[in-house]
Amino acid sequence: MATIPQSHADLVNKKAFANLATVNADGSPQVTPVWWDSDGTNILVNTAKGRVKAKNLERNPRVALSISDPDNPYRYLGIQGRVVEMTEQGADAHINKMAKKYLGKDEYPYRQPGEVRVLVKIKPEKVHTNR
Amino acid sequence: MATIPQSHADLVNKKAFANLATVNADGSPQVTPVWWDSDGTNILVNTAKGRVKAKNLERNPRVALSISDPDNPYRYLGIQGRVVEMTEQGADAHINKMAKKYLGKDEYPYRQPGEVRVLVKIKPEKVHTNR
Repeated sequence: MATIPQSHADLVNKKAFANLATVNADGSPQVTPVWWDSDGTNILVNTAKGRVKAKNLERNPRVALSISDPDNPYRYLGIQGRVVEMTEQGADAHINKMAKKYLGKDEYPYRQPGEVRVLVKIKPEKVHTNR
Repeated sequence: MATIPQSHADLVNKKAFANLATVNADGSPQVTPVWWDSDGTNILVNTAKGRVKAKNLERNPRVALSISDPDNPYRYLGIQGRVVEMTEQGADAHINKMAKKYLGKDEYPYRQPGEVRVLVKIKPEKVHTNR
């Protein structure tokens, strides 16, 4: 079990994106920027049921995250981890919380009809930082 | 073969980092921010011999890149591709070119003793953009 060091703990409160890497069914890597926060133990991200990323995480729980400080791209937090839970429970509340953090909006404005949000909990296993 | 669409071609001239995802020997993903540019056909990145990323790319040439506009993180270029060449030839000139682009310096200032630079040429196979 690894944790975000105190030196980089402020990144969770910034509008810093996490570039979340997963592995596709064909063994190629996949990476997209995502909103994120932490519950103090796990990294929390949010996706939607049926998306490539959700399917990848169900098949292979191993992930890597690359998080740069938006105020200084050379200040960096890298995390290797494993998905320990994917749940619809609390996922709507969490995406609204992310909309508040990143957009200043009380409700997530990009919801699609029929979309089912999924809260993804990632346990950090290795953490490295730069600066 | 895919190309960067005209709408996002300006990103190559910005100090935008590419989050480059590869796959580790154990099947887990790896992702780190890297400097990049393009030769008009391939995405060019630069690494050093013996690094995890270099070893991963020698084993598995499939990569994904996530590139956000530093002036608007929601403006985004995603690339899936394949390494078509890894060469020491031109690698020193390229890392100096990247130091000029990203740091405004004529020479790459972080070279380690004995470090051998490797120029990595990535052929884009799928490109997607946001905004």
